[in-house]
Amino acid sequence: MAGSLGRLFRGFQSFTSLPATRAQLSHPPAFFSSRTMVTLPSFLSSKPRDFSLPNSSWGPEMLRLYELYNSQCEVETEGGEKQEGSWQRLPSYNRSLKFATGGVYLSKIIQSKARLFTRNIREQGAAFEYVLFNNKEEQRCVGIFQAGHLLEGPPGHVHGGAIATMIDTVTGTHATILSGPVMTANLNINYRSPIPLGSTVLIESSLDTKEGRKTFISCKVTSTDSSKLHTESTALFLSINVSHLLRGG
Amino acid sequence: MAGSLGRLFRGFQSFTSLPATRAQLSHPPAFFSSRTMVTLPSFLSSKPRDFSLPNSSWGPEMLRLYELYNSQCEVETEGGEKQEGSWQRLPSYNRSLKFATGGVYLSKIIQSKARLFTRNIREQGAAFEYVLFNNKEEQRCVGIFQAGHLLEGPPGHVHGGAIATMIDTVTGTHATILSGPVMTANLNINYRSPIPLGSTVLIESSLDTKEGRKTFISCKVTSTDSSKLHTESTALFLSINVSHLLRGG
Repeated sequence: MAGSLGRLFRGFQSFTSLPATRAQLSHPPAFFSSRTMVTLPSFLSSKPRDFSLPNSSWGPEMLRLYELYNSQCEVETEGGEKQEGSWQRLPSYNRSLKFATGGVYLSKIIQSKARLFTRNIREQGAAFEYVLFNNKEEQRCVGIFQAGHLLEGPPGHVHGGAIATMIDTVTGTHATILSGPVMTANLNINYRSPIPLGSTVLIESSLDTKEGRKTFISCKVTSTDSSKLHTESTALFLSINVSHLLRGG
Repeated sequence: MAGSLGRLFRGFQSFTSLPATRAQLSHPPAFFSSRTMVTLPSFLSSKPRDFSLPNSSWGPEMLRLYELYNSQCEVETEGGEKQEGSWQRLPSYNRSLKFATGGVYLSKIIQSKARLFTRNIREQGAAFEYVLFNNKEEQRCVGIFQAGHLLEGPPGHVHGGAIATMIDTVTGTHATILSGPVMTANLNINYRSPIPLGSTVLIESSLDTKEGRKTFISCKVTSTDSSKLHTESTALFLSINVSHLLRGG
């Protein structure tokens, strides 16, 4: 299990979303999984905050990498027309949806206060600052992660559980793009070198293979210049029938 | 790497600890690793909040299990004297120490705002509520974990990263008790059944073997009556020289 299913619904807002700022509203969500796209009632259509957009807590390295990938999301043709680039930025919200595909109302199983684990702290820069980009052609997903001071494990370094959380987030999002609704079945994580609090790292996810209901993914966490390997892991995801989970099964 | 080293220092407070309540102050910390015990200057000796003690957010199941293990921490002899029981409650604080063994001042590498990942949210019951008990004779450690609404992954269920975080916390604390200062080298986690938000689960850690610098541990997350297996995992910890990390090496 894991954050996988939650990610399926992150394109949608709840009644209780945090107010979005002006800057955020100017960047409407650019990505929805076609499998989970539903038409929302108009009273639900105020835009939620997209946490994948830059904020004032982002350091120079985080911003540089964001611009590097973001600039490849749209390219201009010789005729001056804009078209899709090789990368796609994935928006990120702070909670799941009350309405699932098919109109199943989730309020009975989701407390109205529930928030996505990686987006549960309002203070910008304090915890998980991250943005994900997907490369469909290369079947690769990249996360840029700036670790805030509230993620401490060993003195001055990021908690192993926080690193596991980011690995689950990047590989789970990637598996969802590749295979539709999934749940994490296994995470096997080797911690090679601790990550100092405050630093920005790269999280790279690549598809190994798909076999029936199984999606196998590899993931590396490195320094932003790729010279230092912090963590390497494999992840296995199982395709699921979402309605099963929504019924509380 | 992981929360392991952080746990070594959790018996100590910082200048910036949250104010402790009256109820918490009446239960002084009962456990310190002998390897990390240092004498603190008197100006550091105001008691920090011990997060392992019951608060008003704890549900009946969490309280019942706390009492079950806590009642076995001290036993009364026939003569009416009190003596150590088979279990020992492990106190838990929200940050690492600025002073390490030998008086190394850590402020340069630890930002004053840093907080232990599992204790970084002030609202009681919102995130990780847990208490750990250790059984020295049986080389077993037990965590009782109540999952708050801010730990959401799949709709209505706990994030896989939050579960990994608790597994790292329980096994890492256990490894530290068994082997002294350690860092997490590997976590291999199989997710069997999702954990509903708000529920209380048991996390049981047991020593598999020790080989040189390596400590191998197994861990299961189950329903409180042990009938349902949510997660099973193995963990490998490496003994470390703390000063290496403190120097930022």
